[in-house]
Parts: sequence; structure tokens; C-alpha cells
Amino acid sequence: MSVGRFTIPTEENFIQQSTELAEKWGADAIRNSDGTHLDDDVINMGKRIYSAYFPNRGHNYFMKDHMDCVPMVYLMSERTRATDTTVDVPLMHTYFAEQLTINRDASPHRFWEVIDRTSGEVLPTDQWSLDADADVVHIHDAHKMHEYTVTFLAYVIWDPVQMYNHITNDWGDKEHEIAFDPRHPEIQEFMLNTLDKWLVDNPHVDVVRFTTFFYQFTLIFNNERKEKIVDWTGFAVTVSPRALDEFERKYGYRMRPEHFVDGGSYGSSFVYPSKEQRDWLDFTADFVHSLMKQMVERVQAAGKEAMMFLGDQWIGTEPYSSTFPNVGMDAIVGSVGDGTTTRMIADIKGVKYHEGRFLPYFFPDSFYEGADPSIEAWDNWRKSRRAILRSPLERMGYGGYLSLAAKFPKFVDDVATIANEFRDIYDKSGGTGAQAQLTVALLDAWGARRSWQEFTVAHALPNKYNRSFYGILEALSGMRVNVRFLSFDDVLANGIDSDIDVIINAGPQGTSYSGAQAWKNPQLVSLIRSWVSSGKGFVGVGQPSAVEHGGRHFQLADILGVDQEIYHSLNVDKYWPELTEDHFVIQDIPRESLDFGEAIMNTFPISQQTTVISGLAGQVQLAVNSYDDGRGVYLSGLPYSALNARLLERALFYAAHKEDQYAVWGSSNPECEVAYFAEKGIYAVVNNSEKPQHTVVSLPGGKAATFDLAPSAIEWTAIS
Amino acid sequence: MSVGRFTIPTEENFIQQSTELAEKWGADAIRNSDGTHLDDDVINMGKRIYSAYFPNRGHNYFMKDHMDCVPMVYLMSERTRATDTTVDVPLMHTYFAEQLTINRDASPHRFWEVIDRTSGEVLPTDQWSLDADADVVHIHDAHKMHEYTVTFLAYVIWDPVQMYNHITNDWGDKEHEIAFDPRHPEIQEFMLNTLDKWLVDNPHVDVVRFTTFFYQFTLIFNNERKEKIVDWTGFAVTVSPRALDEFERKYGYRMRPEHFVDGGSYGSSFVYPSKEQRDWLDFTADFVHSLMKQMVERVQAAGKEAMMFLGDQWIGTEPYSSTFPNVGMDAIVGSVGDGTTTRMIADIKGVKYHEGRFLPYFFPDSFYEGADPSIEAWDNWRKSRRAILRSPLERMGYGGYLSLAAKFPKFVDDVATIANEFRDIYDKSGGTGAQAQLTVALLDAWGARRSWQEFTVAHALPNKYNRSFYGILEALSGMRVNVRFLSFDDVLANGIDSDIDVIINAGPQGTSYSGAQAWKNPQLVSLIRSWVSSGKGFVGVGQPSAVEHGGRHFQLADILGVDQEIYHSLNVDKYWPELTEDHFVIQDIPRESLDFGEAIMNTFPISQQTTVISGLAGQVQLAVNSYDDGRGVYLSGLPYSALNARLLERALFYAAHKEDQYAVWGSSNPECEVAYFAEKGIYAVVNNSEKPQHTVVSLPGGKAATFDLAPSAIEWTAIS
Repeated sequence: MSVGRFTIPTEENFIQQSTELAEKWGADAIRNSDGTHLDDDVINMGKRIYSAYFPNRGHNYFMKDHMDCVPMVYLMSERTRATDTTVDVPLMHTYFAEQLTINRDASPHRFWEVIDRTSGEVLPTDQWSLDADADVVHIHDAHKMHEYTVTFLAYVIWDPVQMYNHITNDWGDKEHEIAFDPRHPEIQEFMLNTLDKWLVDNPHVDVVRFTTFFYQFTLIFNNERKEKIVDWTGFAVTVSPRALDEFERKYGYRMRPEHFVDGGSYGSSFVYPSKEQRDWLDFTADFVHSLMKQMVERVQAAGKEAMMFLGDQWIGTEPYSSTFPNVGMDAIVGSVGDGTTTRMIADIKGVKYHEGRFLPYFFPDSFYEGADPSIEAWDNWRKSRRAILRSPLERMGYGGYLSLAAKFPKFVDDVATIANEFRDIYDKSGGTGAQAQLTVALLDAWGARRSWQEFTVAHALPNKYNRSFYGILEALSGMRVNVRFLSFDDVLANGIDSDIDVIINAGPQGTSYSGAQAWKNPQLVSLIRSWVSSGKGFVGVGQPSAVEHGGRHFQLADILGVDQEIYHSLNVDKYWPELTEDHFVIQDIPRESLDFGEAIMNTFPISQQTTVISGLAGQVQLAVNSYDDGRGVYLSGLPYSALNARLLERALFYAAHKEDQYAVWGSSNPECEVAYFAEKGIYAVVNNSEKPQHTVVSLPGGKAATFDLAPSAIEWTAIS
Repeated sequence: MSVGRFTIPTEENFIQQSTELAEKWGADAIRNSDGTHLDDDVINMGKRIYSAYFPNRGHNYFMKDHMDCVPMVYLMSERTRATDTTVDVPLMHTYFAEQLTINRDASPHRFWEVIDRTSGEVLPTDQWSLDADADVVHIHDAHKMHEYTVTFLAYVIWDPVQMYNHITNDWGDKEHEIAFDPRHPEIQEFMLNTLDKWLVDNPHVDVVRFTTFFYQFTLIFNNERKEKIVDWTGFAVTVSPRALDEFERKYGYRMRPEHFVDGGSYGSSFVYPSKEQRDWLDFTADFVHSLMKQMVERVQAAGKEAMMFLGDQWIGTEPYSSTFPNVGMDAIVGSVGDGTTTRMIADIKGVKYHEGRFLPYFFPDSFYEGADPSIEAWDNWRKSRRAILRSPLERMGYGGYLSLAAKFPKFVDDVATIANEFRDIYDKSGGTGAQAQLTVALLDAWGARRSWQEFTVAHALPNKYNRSFYGILEALSGMRVNVRFLSFDDVLANGIDSDIDVIINAGPQGTSYSGAQAWKNPQLVSLIRSWVSSGKGFVGVGQPSAVEHGGRHFQLADILGVDQEIYHSLNVDKYWPELTEDHFVIQDIPRESLDFGEAIMNTFPISQQTTVISGLAGQVQLAVNSYDDGRGVYLSGLPYSALNARLLERALFYAAHKEDQYAVWGSSNPECEVAYFAEKGIYAVVNNSEKPQHTVVSLPGGKAATFDLAPSAIEWTAIS
């Protein structure tokens, strides 16, 4: 049994068993999660101590005198139709009054916007007024039967995370926590003073775990106390009159309310980001980084480490920005849901170490009588392990109530096994990722800024809207390839790095992911064409490069060999080639087991030269195409599964013209994968399934090795 | 047995049996279909004689000296990518050289267009040249990796209809017929002289059946002798340098080649028609009508009737234009495939009578040993009868080889039954349509111009692309409602007639049918809203009013209660109301038997006030919504079936707020319908199925009548 790299939660009055569990799991650190309390018993355990720290809430006594410094948000009223030349637009009608109140302090005529959504016109301010008493805007000289919206500034008077827990757990009259916006100097001062005092008061803490910083991702409730808007990457709650004015001074133009609400899209990452939105993100990140840095420096000056939880108030921290390393953060910790979220944590640059909080949390929803929490633990570990083998986490841990976990001895044993395996991977690999055989770049409007966060809907779980695309990330997270994230702007400014083998473009039409209007830019299109033509690969998933232009829907139809009929050339015959039964990209994959996700209707091969491998009722599901010395691959969708990961892997090697390099370090069984650590002369074979698996691994020099792996097993072999 | 209103084909050496069949079927007219031959025997039968007349082909001896007067077409080359700064674009690569040759007589630099499809730019003429020998355009100073197309003028040197039959029937070295374009004065003169002579030479002909006039719908073949472009409403083959010049003189601007090829759409009726395209259609119709009128006058001066076959060369005749009646045509004849095509013939104004050519044609594909052609005959008759009861045809007939039909005695008897039924309907109804209880308008970009021709793909048969929408027409064709066709321009110019109860807007997004950019016009949107709000109904099918604008996809989402998520507001929660189980619009319709056609993905109720009646996996299939005093109904699709016709009927009455008028003249059984002829005090109950049916018909005053109908039966009842 090994020790270290493992953090356990504390629990009051549970010290002896905590000590035993810590020993069993090899824990070298403990954490308290509410940040307020540390028993002497805990301190005396002799472990490194993490303490949660909440920089922007938990000081209601102070905030009661600073209610103009709570976070703010631009909200769009419901669309209200004028049935006469005057119309009253109710503002708070569908919003949760306990969470939000109208900001009447900042001049509505300066900060709000009334839009005729039918004509698209912004109303002059002399055409509307806010009622002195009621939450209503009166409009005159309205056009009958036009719909109007008011975008108004609101105070967020209840911290959304506490609100969510409060409502979910029915906490009754428990006090509502009030968050604050550090954009105000008096708040900054308060925050820094409070931190200084806290550091003095908490000498035994080794690691200050910031949970998180200043700006909550968008989480707005409705008048029925239910979620109304939720967006992991949403930056709606970063606004204030002060911020708007500062932005104007810095960027030379003023943000409009519409840049935040965007007709009801609220800056969804699926919408192609405007220049204004990207400027705002940079502006916010600059501010957030600067204040983070001050806090980190204070923590480090106190002899402690600063750790950032990649969670609720992460907006503006932009951990994938080029300037994030300047903050000097010591560590990142985040919740590990699958391979993609593991990579989202593990790939962040500029920190000393990355820690994963694994599932399940020790909460009653997983730990109830008769439950087997080991199932979730192993599922979580298997998915995360794929990613860790490619991009290591340095530490791991669990959260919740230790006393609950302790009631499940099998689970306790399994966590011990997982912890040992985690440490073993780190030790054997030397803390580096396994050797990659290809370099793959995902190309979209966001690029590196949203690494491993693409296609995120709401709380980042796959759903019908994103499962066809999120599966690409999940497949890549554990694949023997390097993964980069490129934006269209990157490519236009810098070209494509010569070491990239394949570009992937994926997503539904009209989004930031597939690219929408970006593809009307002939520079972008010709640049990608030249690059592929020279011998590279392009894999399109869903509606890649889709925008109607010049008689095409997929602008790179010539590379993909596939376009989509959008009812504009039904009069032109489409002749399909015969389906190709056998092909490298589906070799050893049972055709009938493939899941191409949500249907993309009415796609077709642009010529008989396209190799259609799977197609159904007028929809191409899988096709490949030669493009001079390069290749295109079209997939209609790729929900995650072991088979689909295998399909994508084969497609990438094929697109890169590296089929001849595919066999070595490959596993004959798609449920198993191989991670080869060249420097260490060692390779691991993992069973990604909960069943025993047999596989043959191809080794260099035409050799092979056979493995019979127990469920979830990992087996290490030194090469001779 | 009654007599009249019936036309049979002639057949050589079959005179005695022809006479017997004519008697059995009550025929009063005979027709020869090749227009060249009339036996004395036939003339002596004493029937009215129709003769086919082909105004624009069949004179190769003349055309051989006028090959510059064959029809012309703008063709778009394949998209050709520049891999260097020069690029050669092959022109005829994918076209059928026996059908098409490049027109080198009209200056390419004046009449052609070379377009960079990647940038959208039209190349200056000094940047390209047509090779003196090869069918290739050379481009210099090209942008590498851009795709170029050449739109070139080609001669159509083989009449497409004869070509189609020639290739289909493998006619070998039979001479290719050459069509001609009457835009040229010498051709007009030849045509009129030829007609004059023909009239003199054919004194026994009573009816000259023009087959058809001058411009063939688009039918272009590819280099593999297969269909490449086919479009029933396509006007591609109406162009010529002369026409272009005349157009410019008349309209003050010049048509571009791109107005014809439109990036490869070739004027598909699904593409929103540009002003230029509509001007061209008017320009062509003016010319066609003027020349038709000269021909009709000559026919009538010779004491004969002029009949137009609504078929192959119908382009430019625009039988639904307001000026068509000025032509003075005596009759229209067309092939009846279903209720919709019956109405397409029957509803044409400005002729004395309408004749339907029923199916099956007496050809070997339906009349082979062991076949039962009666099945198709009855199916055809049942569908057509629905329409005839609403909008009468005055005459009917069949086509093909009589001798083939004569070998099927049951078929011969069935035709006799159908013919009698046809005459009986005419006699009992007095030649008027049954009473309508609602007036319904289909709203799209085309309006009346394409009455009963909406959603036509290729040869007008339902397919996966249009079946969800074509079913609306087929359902309406036999429904107890008046049907109008309105264009957006009509509505904007003239408002909506006060007698219209319900407007239907239907089709896929981005098309002329659903309306695309038309809905960005606030005048249109507010006009429809006002009208519905006042108590009218709006039924949307598929992606009605779809265009992204102002935060909505369906611009009339407020009326429909339904919008579509286009991945721009995934961060906003959508709460669905409970499904409504019982509702007027699906009363008596078994829910599980409904077919909503091709899926429309990701539609959602815009609020809990929407009444969702059918919804599946995040797609609304059927919903209704209140809108002030009016109502909206959303249907995701409506392929034709008796049940779907019933569903639409109920939806229309519901939308019109006329549920209380629904019962009377309704049939309890959806397979049966009632046609009430108020002036005659009589009603017909029809069985639209091939099985016996029982139904209860609701009569005025709360009375009811029960019917047990034999398969396909019609039963007449006088009201007391």
C-alpha cells in the first residue's frame, strides 16, 4: 500500500475513524469544506490541511450596508405585444423576486434598452419610462402587434449557489447569503482585509482552497422558484454600471445591454461570440486575474498554497487564457465527472498541481441502505483513468461525509484500490502523459479559451442537444492523440501548426462550434483546403462548416464529400455510390452497434467519388473522401461509447494518412486501450469496462501480447 | 347508362372494338395522340374528334437550318477548385452531349458569368476566356483553393420529352426530335404557317389539343444519360440572347446568368423567388400568352376548339395568372394523379371546360397478364372524386392502347361504372362544387401563381422531402372548404379578404413556402397578428414563419405557441405543459394512428399556456394556442391519409372558432366524407376507401343519417 496524493474530507466527532480511513486510503491531506471550522483533532492528525475559502459571500452583516455592490445582471423581460399604441412591459413577471430586484439606482435611460423585436429597432429613450412604483416599463407610440422587450439591470440579491441548495433542500427560513461584486473598490478592500485576517486566524491551514472567486456562472430562477437560465460558461452576472464605464474607457466603445442578453441567448457558448462579447470576457478576466493575483500573493506570503476550485464562481478566471499562469496559483481542483472534465482540470497550465475530486460524493443520494456506491466509483474511475493516462492529475480526493462512506466497507476497500492505482499510475508514468501518435485540433469559434468545455449545455451533462458532439471530447480525452483547441481567429492569424495531423470541426449549424458565418470567409476556407490538400486530415461531425453560401451548405463539402440538402436543390438528382462495406475506419467494429446520435437530415454525397460507409434513408452517417493528398471524414454524430471512441480513433488515423501506424500500441478489443510511456519503457493496458476482457496488443516490430483483464483492470508491462 | 363527358383514345385497326368500348363507356369524343393520323373509320364513328398538336417540335427538316433557334438554357459547370493561379473549368463534363451543346454564337463575355463561389465574386471578363476548341474556360489570376463555376449558355438540341422516351424505351437510332424557341420571329412565322396549313389539312378535327406550347419544364440529363435536373415548375429553358435583350428593354435592367442558375438551385420553386425571377416569369408569360392567343384565334377561326394539355411544355402558360383568361383557350386537359392534380386542372379560370385524363394509362406496365388494373383505376378515381365534388371537372377520359384495356373485362366494366358515376355527379350537382363551410388560404411566396403546385419536387410525386407538406394540399383538395392561394406580396398589398377564416403557412425553413426572409418584414408579421387576434385562425405546419430574427426562429411563435430551438438558447429552461389528452382537433381520431411525417427537431412550447396535444422526445407534433380572439395550431407535418385529412379539417374548424359548425355535414367515419349541394337540396356520402364503411352523417337540425357504404361507393340523398 502506497501513501500520498490523496485528500479526504473532515467530519466533526469522527476523528478516530477518519484517521483509520486516512490510513487505509493513504491520505496525506484533509480538507474542511465549509471553511469555517477546524477541530484541534483534525489539526493533530498531522496531515496537510486544506480549507475552503469563499471570497465573495458569507458576510451578510457587511453587505447589508452595501446592497448596491451585489452582483448584477442584465435580464430581458418577456416579449410583450402591443395591442395599442401604448404598451406596458412587466419586468419581473417571470423572475424570482427573492433572487432578483430591479436596479433603479442606475439610470434606466442610460443603462437599459427597449427593443422592438419585430422590427429589430432600439427605441429612443423618450419613448419609454420606468414606472415609479411598479416593475413596469411604459412605452408610447408603439407599433401595434409588434413585440417589445425591456433589457433591464437587476441586482442579484441571493447567492445562486446557496439559493439552489436552499430551495433544493428546503432550508426554510435559513438566512439568504448575499454575494458581492469586487468591481467596487470598497468591496475589494473588504475582501482583501477579510482574507488577511483569515490568514492570521488560520495558521494551521496549508492550502487555501478558493471556492471559487468572484463571478458565478449564470443561474437565474423563475417566478415558480425553478431554474430559468443556467449556463456553465455564462458570463451574464459580471456586469455593473461601474464595469460598463471602465470597459468603455479601456476599449473605446460602450457595451450595449443587448450584448449580454442577445435576444434571449444570454451569451450562450453555442452562439457565435461577437467581438464585443470576447472583449468583455477579456476585460473581465483582466480584472479577475489581477484581484486573484493579490489574493494568491497574500496566501503565499502567509506560507500557504493557493488552490482554485474550478467551480461555481469560476467566471472570469479563464484558466485556459494565456495570462492565467501570471496569477501564480499553486493548484487547481475540480470535480471529475468523466474523461472530459478530467482533462478540463488536468490540462490547465501554470499551476504546480491538479487535483480531481472523484465521484460519488459521500452524500445520502448515493449512500443509502442497499446501495452499492462502488458502481459509480468504478465507472467514474474508469472514465477518468483514460484521461489521466494521457494528461496526469497529480492528486485525487473525495468529498462528503466520511461517516457515510464508512458504513460501506466494500466501497472503502474499493477506494483504497483506486487510490493505490492512482498513485501507481503516477509513479510508473513519472507524472507524464502517455505517448501520443497523432496531434488533433478541434476547430471552433472559441479555441483554447474553452478547452474541454465545448458543447456544454447547462450543467455539463450530455443531453439530446449535445450528446452527438460531446462524445468527441470524451473519446479524445483518453485517446492516444495530442489534443489542441484552435479558434478560427487563431488559424487566420497564425496558420495551422505543422505538427497538427487532423482538424475536427463539429456541431450543429449556425453555432460557434460548427462555425456559422466564419465559413463565409474565403481566407479561412482556402487555408483549410490548402492544408488538407497538402496531405492532412479533416473530420467533420454533424453540420461541419455549415452556412448557406455560394450554393453549398457545408462550405467544406469538397473535402468531406458530403453536403446537406436544405431544400434549395431538390430539383437536382443525387446519385449515391454503393455503400462501402469494408473500410479501415470501421474495421473490427460491428456496424450494427454504431450509434451516430441525433439524425442530421438530408445529407448526401456530393459525387459518386465519395466513399459512403454508412447511410440511412437519405442521410449520410459516415463517409470518407480523398482530397488531393489529404482526406476528409464525415460523421453525422458521435455519442460516447467505447465503440465510437474506436471509430473516431480509426477515422483520425485514416484522415491523417497514418493507417500504417495504427496497429502498434493498439488493442484488438475496443473496450481496452493501451498507454505507452516511451521514456519509461513501459505500457499499461486498461479495461474500460465493468466486465472481464480479452485483448491482443500490437507491439513494435510486429510482435503482440495477449491480455485477459479483470473488470476495470489495469495491467503494466515493461517492454524488453 | 348515361352518355357523354368521356373521351377515349383511338387505335388503328381496332375500330369495331373501339366502337363497342365507346358505347359501353358512353364516350362522346375520341382522340388521337400523335396528332398525325386519323383513319376514316375513326372519323366515321361520329364522335367529336380531338387531335394532339405539337407546336414546337416535329419539324426537324426545318430546324436543321435554324439550329440557332433551338431552346437554350443556362448551365452551371461543376465547381472547379483552383490549385494554382490558373484554372481550367470543364463545362460539359457532367452534361449529356446528345442533349446539350455550348452556345458559342452568343458572346461568352457578354452572356456568361464566371463566379468565385468561395468569395462570391463575379470575375471580370478579362480574367477568363473560352477555349477556341475545347469546352473549357481558362481562368487566370485565380485565388488558390477557391472554387469557380462558369455559367454558360447551351443549346438544347434534343427535345427533352422525346429524349426521355427514347432513352427509357431504348429507341436506338430513331431520329432525335429538335424543339424550337418561338422567341425568334422566323420561328413564330413558321409555327403559325404550319398551324394554318394543319388546320386546312384536318377538317374533321373538332378539338385541337395543344401538347403543349413552347417551353419545356426543366429536364436536363447528365453524361451518363441519366436525369440530372428535373423540375415541373422550372423555367430554365426559356432563355436566349434575344429574350434577355427584350427583357432588358422592357424592364430596364438585365438578367444575370445567376438569376437562372442561382448557385445550382436553377429556380427551384422552394427557393424564395427574387424580383428578377418573378419579372422573368411575367415577361415569359406575356410572350407565351400573346403567341398562344394567336394560335387559339386561328383554331377558333377554323371552327374548332383549342384545348391546352397542362403538361410538358406548359412553362410560361401560367394558367393561374390573371391574364391567362385573355388567351381565350376553350379547354384544359391534364393528367389526374390525385386530388391535388385534379384541382390543379379543375380550378383554372377562363376556360369553358376542364378534362381529366385518368389513371391508369392503358400501357403494358399496368396491363400485363395477371394484373388487376382496376385497383389503380379505383384508387385514382376515389382520390380525384373527392376533388371533383368540390371543384368539378366537366369531362374525363383515359389514354393509351384501347386493345390492351379490352383484354381486361373487369377493368372495362369498372371504367363504365366510373364514367357513369362521373356523369352522375355532374348531373346531380349541376356542375358546381359542394357547399364549403370555411374559407382557407395557403400563404407563401408564390400565392395564386402556383395554385395546387406547391411543394412539387421533380415529377410531382410525394417523396421524403415534401410528403409532410404535400399532404396538406391533398387533404384540402377534397375538403368542405374553399381554398385560396395568397402570396406575401398579396397580403402586403391588399390585406386579407374578410371571408378568409384560416391561413395556413407550411414548409421547411428557408424556403419560399414557409417564407424565409419574408417574415423579417414587420408589416407582414403585424398584419397577420392583427388578423388572427381579431378572431381568425392560423395553422402552421413544419417550420412555419421560420427565420432567425429578434430571438425567435418561428416569427409567429406567439400565435402558434411553439418555437424551435436552434441551439441558441439551450441555456434557457423549457417547461412543457402536461400533454392534453382530449381535444376537439383529435376527437374520434386514434392518436396512435397519426403520422406527423418527417421529424421537425427541437420544437418546444413557448410557455405553459400552449396546449400541447402531441409531443415526442422534445418535438412538438400538434399544439394549439389562444391568441386574443383568434387561434393558432401547430402541426409538425401532415402526410396525406384519411385520418390526417380529418385532423386538418378539425384543426381548421377549431382555428376558425367554428367548432359548433363542424358536426353538420360531417361524417363520423374519417374514411367517408359528405358533399352537400345546397341549391339542389341533395348530398353525397362517399367512401374514400377500398373497404366497406359504416358512417353516421350529421344533418341540420340535430338529425343524423346512417350509411353503410360498399367499397368506393357514393350514395346520394335528397334532404327533405
